[in-house]
Amino acid sequence: MSRTTVYRLRVEFGDCDPAGIVWFPNFFRWVDAASRHYFVTCGVPPWHELERRTGVMGTPLVDTQARFVKSASYGDELAVHTTIAEWRGKSFVQTHRVMRDEELVMECREVRVFAARRSEAEGGGIRAVEVPEEVRALLG
Amino acid sequence: MSRTTVYRLRVEFGDCDPAGIVWFPNFFRWVDAASRHYFVTCGVPPWHELERRTGVMGTPLVDTQARFVKSASYGDELAVHTTIAEWRGKSFVQTHRVMRDEELVMECREVRVFAARRSEAEGGGIRAVEVPEEVRALLG
Amino acid sequence: MSRTTVYRLRVEFGDCDPAGIVWFPNFFRWVDAASRHYFVTCGVPPWHELERRTGVMGTPLVDTQARFVKSASYGDELAVHTTIAEWRGKSFVQTHRVMRDEELVMECREVRVFAARRSEAEGGGIRAVEVPEEVRALLG
Amino acid sequence: MSRTTVYRLRVEFGDCDPAGIVWFPNFFRWVDAASRHYFVTCGVPPWHELERRTGVMGTPLVDTQARFVKSASYGDELAVHTTIAEWRGKSFVQTHRVMRDEELVMECREVRVFAARRSEAEGGGIRAVEVPEEVRALLG
Repeated sequence: MSRTTVYRLRVEFGDCDPAGIVWFPNFFRWVDAASRHYFVTCGVPPWHELERRTGVMGTPLVDTQARFVKSASYGDELAVHTTIAEWRGKSFVQTHRVMRDEELVMECREVRVFAARRSEAEGGGIRAVEVPEEVRALLG
Repeated sequence: MSRTTVYRLRVEFGDCDPAGIVWFPNFFRWVDAASRHYFVTCGVPPWHELERRTGVMGTPLVDTQARFVKSASYGDELAVHTTIAEWRGKSFVQTHRVMRDEELVMECREVRVFAARRSEAEGGGIRAVEVPEEVRALLG
Repeated sequence: MSRTTVYRLRVEFGDCDPAGIVWFPNFFRWVDAASRHYFVTCGVPPWHELERRTGVMGTPLVDTQARFVKSASYGDELAVHTTIAEWRGKSFVQTHRVMRDEELVMECREVRVFAARRSEAEGGGIRAVEVPEEVRALLG
Repeated sequence: MSRTTVYRLRVEFGDCDPAGIVWFPNFFRWVDAASRHYFVTCGVPPWHELERRTGVMGTPLVDTQARFVKSASYGDELAVHTTIAEWRGKSFVQTHRVMRDEELVMECREVRVFAARRSEAEGGGIRAVEVPEEVRALLG
């Protein structure tokens, strides 16, 4: 059984568009914060610390499916419920449910990888790597 | 045969995260701009003008599937190729391919609706409406 | 004596740039949220409610001076201390101090106005208006 | 005589707030892009390249004064006119005028420094450094 973490946020005026509702890219901003919050809650050190020891500098997104169920607006308090649905070799499936009290506002299913930087000689950018042992141990 | 429009952009320093690559919510920012650019290119008036005549204030996102194929960084020039793959009653499927020259960087498939504001009496927010006649005529 | 409100936030990975520190426009995002939080804390209703009764739809920025004292990064917890330093006719001066525990990270001094929408006939956009009586009463 | 560069942009729907006008932190996003564009136009290499040779990873903001003169909305095409008003030891003053055709929309005056990363041993973050010789030569 995987654990579920909860990341709480307030919707702000500037998160909303001329229709008065949350402009959708902001949901991905919150989901990304919730993704990292999951690891922090499990005791995984900050990426810049993990990078020094293991080379891993984060868990970039490879694939996402999202469904926008209800609109939200400023003043709303939302909670992102996050869990890991599946572990694969270098990737994992993380799901997020953005709730306003009992009401589902948005949900998404992400495939992310553990990534390390590629050297300049390799052309820069990033590449997927195995989940570091110390992370796997924490996520049990 | 649906037409394809191209929306061009430069990746900026502030679009990138501590890994030095585009932070993914920014791709959705560009895809959203490309979505509106499609309608503008087809001759559809700005939403605030269309709203006065038809009540339609935009085409909010209902569902999206996205695949991140290559990382991008500041200095990159990207082109978003956008088309409409399918028309349904109140919704439509729009696809976007974000290219760096001949290379696919990201692609996504969106379901969007034409939406009007709900009155305060109806509880605020938005609701899906039929595609206005004048828009359908322009999109042929 | 003016009151001071405190708006708390966590710095996220996506708020940081390739140098690994907060990309400065995000500080203005937080300061803007802190500005609205001040009014909410004083009991002023949400702008969309106030607009129905008084026409006021927000307090847009006219002028700002900001000083960036320390860098911040993801994982930091910041508190924005906000007060109103001066009331003028249609405008006011609001100051914000962004703190990390006892350390000053950024500070700014803003001039904002109470604004109402201009009709389409007037060319659209917004115009400054007198502070509504009900707001002045709450801010004492 | 300092040169002036021009950075062009389109205001998008998602750049605007519930009042239908540009949410002000986005102006700083564009000004930051215009600041980097100035150096690129002068032939200064991308920061990640400059960092390898000189340690300089960018020109973070130390101080800014901004004045918001006119509102802008989606569909507007803006041009940011940028110049360097003054060189100091490790810092410089850069000014930006955001224009819509002949009309001034926003202007700001920034103090920025050339910065290098501080090592982890030094506590991380960044520190101001002298303008690299190769940059000074290009900026004449």
